[in-house]
Amino acid sequence: MRRADEDLLAELKARLLEIGDLGGTAAVLSWDQSTYMPKGGAGARGRQSALMSRLMHERRTDPGLGRLIEQLTPYALSLPPDSDDAALISVTGRDFAKAVRVPTSFVERLSAHSSASYDAWTRARQDNDFAGMRPLLERTLDLSCEYAEFFAPYQHVIDPFIDDMDEGMTCASVRSLLAELRAELVPMVRAICDRPATDDSCLHGAFAEGPQLDFGLSVATAYGYDLDRGRLDRTFHPFCTRFSAGDIRITTRVYPDDVTQALFSTLHEAGHGIYEQGVGAALDGTPLGSGTSAGVHESQSRLWENVVGRSLGLWQHYYPKLRATFPDQLGNVPLEAFHRAINKVERSLIRTEADEVTYNLHIILRFDLELEMLERRLAVKDLPEAWRARYQSDLGISPPDDRDGCLQDVHWFSGCIGGAFHSYTIGNVLSAQFYAAALRAHPEIPAEIAAGRFGTLKAWLEQNLYRHGRKFKADEIVRRATGEAMTIRPYMDYLGGKYGALYGLPQPQSPAAQ
Amino acid sequence: MRRADEDLLAELKARLLEIGDLGGTAAVLSWDQSTYMPKGGAGARGRQSALMSRLMHERRTDPGLGRLIEQLTPYALSLPPDSDDAALISVTGRDFAKAVRVPTSFVERLSAHSSASYDAWTRARQDNDFAGMRPLLERTLDLSCEYAEFFAPYQHVIDPFIDDMDEGMTCASVRSLLAELRAELVPMVRAICDRPATDDSCLHGAFAEGPQLDFGLSVATAYGYDLDRGRLDRTFHPFCTRFSAGDIRITTRVYPDDVTQALFSTLHEAGHGIYEQGVGAALDGTPLGSGTSAGVHESQSRLWENVVGRSLGLWQHYYPKLRATFPDQLGNVPLEAFHRAINKVERSLIRTEADEVTYNLHIILRFDLELEMLERRLAVKDLPEAWRARYQSDLGISPPDDRDGCLQDVHWFSGCIGGAFHSYTIGNVLSAQFYAAALRAHPEIPAEIAAGRFGTLKAWLEQNLYRHGRKFKADEIVRRATGEAMTIRPYMDYLGGKYGALYGLPQPQSPAAQ
Repeated sequence: MRRADEDLLAELKARLLEIGDLGGTAAVLSWDQSTYMPKGGAGARGRQSALMSRLMHERRTDPGLGRLIEQLTPYALSLPPDSDDAALISVTGRDFAKAVRVPTSFVERLSAHSSASYDAWTRARQDNDFAGMRPLLERTLDLSCEYAEFFAPYQHVIDPFIDDMDEGMTCASVRSLLAELRAELVPMVRAICDRPATDDSCLHGAFAEGPQLDFGLSVATAYGYDLDRGRLDRTFHPFCTRFSAGDIRITTRVYPDDVTQALFSTLHEAGHGIYEQGVGAALDGTPLGSGTSAGVHESQSRLWENVVGRSLGLWQHYYPKLRATFPDQLGNVPLEAFHRAINKVERSLIRTEADEVTYNLHIILRFDLELEMLERRLAVKDLPEAWRARYQSDLGISPPDDRDGCLQDVHWFSGCIGGAFHSYTIGNVLSAQFYAAALRAHPEIPAEIAAGRFGTLKAWLEQNLYRHGRKFKADEIVRRATGEAMTIRPYMDYLGGKYGALYGLPQPQSPAAQ
Repeated sequence: MRRADEDLLAELKARLLEIGDLGGTAAVLSWDQSTYMPKGGAGARGRQSALMSRLMHERRTDPGLGRLIEQLTPYALSLPPDSDDAALISVTGRDFAKAVRVPTSFVERLSAHSSASYDAWTRARQDNDFAGMRPLLERTLDLSCEYAEFFAPYQHVIDPFIDDMDEGMTCASVRSLLAELRAELVPMVRAICDRPATDDSCLHGAFAEGPQLDFGLSVATAYGYDLDRGRLDRTFHPFCTRFSAGDIRITTRVYPDDVTQALFSTLHEAGHGIYEQGVGAALDGTPLGSGTSAGVHESQSRLWENVVGRSLGLWQHYYPKLRATFPDQLGNVPLEAFHRAINKVERSLIRTEADEVTYNLHIILRFDLELEMLERRLAVKDLPEAWRARYQSDLGISPPDDRDGCLQDVHWFSGCIGGAFHSYTIGNVLSAQFYAAALRAHPEIPAEIAAGRFGTLKAWLEQNLYRHGRKFKADEIVRRATGEAMTIRPYMDYLGGKYGALYGLPQPQSPAAQ
């Protein structure tokens, strides 16, 4: 390495570290807003967050940064393509090329608007007040369309958003994935819903909140979520956030009458957290130092929440402990009944509470509604009605109000309309694909899970996925880890095997782990 | 107002708002570090805080800001001197003149060091490890001396620190205040300690932490601390912090074997919080938008903690409620015994737990040790021994270890050595002076307090003190509110009256409220 390149690289890293620290600071502001902030803090918090966004964006688009990247490109090309430095220069270059398309003033406006919108939404959802949110959501749609134009010409107006979440994917590739899934899921849902409904009344009752939180956290830490570098707090809409490699926090919510909410939302966010905590320490403070895409990230939350967290094996180990925590409520409920209850399939209204089989139907309709709004075929004022119509046609039920309808998810109310949901389905698909690959390498994993041990699985994921951070794009990570491109096959095999058994459907040839 | 002045003023306010928002953001980082941050977050948090300090200082010292102030000075002089705008321009000018003396690089170094030092101290105090802290504290002393030099020539090396905390005061004026107090306190302490010791065993026992926190908060909110614009959290060393006018938080600590710790530290911090919440809304986002000096601030924490919070009247109303909260522990303890116990005077080791009478002796010795260190007459390595010697000579007891000795207070371990403690004594003195003035205006206040009502007192303080923020310097606030300069007379009358009665000493002529 030439001395000049060394100096340039050091300058690049110093600039990136400052951007990273501004990002971590912005994340602290946002975490606090969603966990502890009193309502009087909202106005100033919006300004503070917008300021951080502006300072970050100014630095991300600084011409000096562009020059550095240019000057370092020959050096990057001289390195092995999978070296950290080559990846750093290349990812920074891609980020820069995207960032300079967006004016700083827009970033600041969007941040201030998002903060105000989120604040209003927390009340509007409670009050079932779509009318009150409508002007804010219309502005969100305007801002979203304005954002997309910075990336014109595009094939589809949603493409820039999809690329932000899952670099390399497009409206066309997402549509084709969703269509492929839909073709197999619709008959599966129909077949299951034709069977007698599962009794999940054992999950409902009076469950003390403290023990619920403690139990979920005990499983999360057994998975490997490290509390020396993280913590769990309560919020309205659970999330995981990264302040730095040593401080990656998760949040959850608790329903006093439902033992599954805190448990599975904790395991879901812990999956995100374990991914972030597993990113190589050397990548911290650079753009490589976090998960590679929204879809791959979601694959880890879904893997730990569902593939592992709702498996019979896990509950062979943990159900006695849960029963000891809630002896009055679960003392007479056998393991198998509990396992069936937490895997109950039904046509329902709330995405975050939906079962694994119907879940993607919730996503597909949201994706379609995003397309309609972005293409200006659907006006914001008509969203509640369109929402109800799609739930009726796709899931056979329709929400009684907007609280459980189009106001239920935070996404459109705290950011852009566009690219907000498709990654969940990519995550579902990849969760099974990664898990199947891990099983091929380590067939002993299910037995370990049934003994409450998760080290082999976590180590495989760390080795093949987590440690790389953003060094490789999603498609390359998937190929490296699983030996093939993204495919719905392992996911459909997993669903078919597990739910076929639970609901007495015809079994597929290669059942995945249950 | 000329159009040009209007534009200049708008630009000034926009700049100040950004500085304020950076300050609020830095405060969020610091609050989180002291309440919820996992230990793995310390390294990056230090960088993030230092970055905020740098960004703030760059803006505070921007030559453009200096030009604006200069251009606006004729306009300021044309205004009534007590108008908001005149005060804004004048205070901003004073702040600017001080800020430009300190290089940005120093501010960033000091912030990073303070963060690392605080982090190490939280462990060192627990482990009684002064040796481990010594190199960090030596660096703190070096940085402190470096800081003072930016303000050379000075009369005394501690003057720049005192001016930062209590603008207008100097080593000479603080020394004279402390000497005057000491002359009256030493015989008073001796007279009281010659009397039979108070039995305060009723305060010690097993007190559940949740009810302790709830009770303290119930009194704080009855005082007027507004939870829509604030909240209470637990920490290691209690503090109050301001993120914005709508978000002013307090913290406390709980001892499961001592019912007074959470209670009085909550009331103390609530006093700070009520002051900040009372600052005029129009001043928010400007340098005028917070309390005027450390000493005046402390007067409010001590007024609500001690003058009100440890008065017999308050407990006439609240003791039945406290007894209902802890019936097993306090059921057989009469009000008068409880009131005597929470006002027990004794020679003790821990400043934050010291009674009102001996408290200032803890301050005086710390101030003297600061002087000795800053004058380089006392080396950091000799601090533990010097601490023990002063406790022995001034208070007649000596700490068994450094945990309860020179490691007990956060101040020197999270900032500079210099100006850290004298404001507490100014606060004690002023708490009685303000309260006496309020009583002259509203003799009904003690009767209201005994009925659990605090509105008249709070309104008087708001009117005469809180709403002005930093508009007036401390000496002017004191004169406006009390009709005279700062004087120890009301404070000594208050102590003499209250403790004379409690300990059967000769009564002064004009007893203050008990």
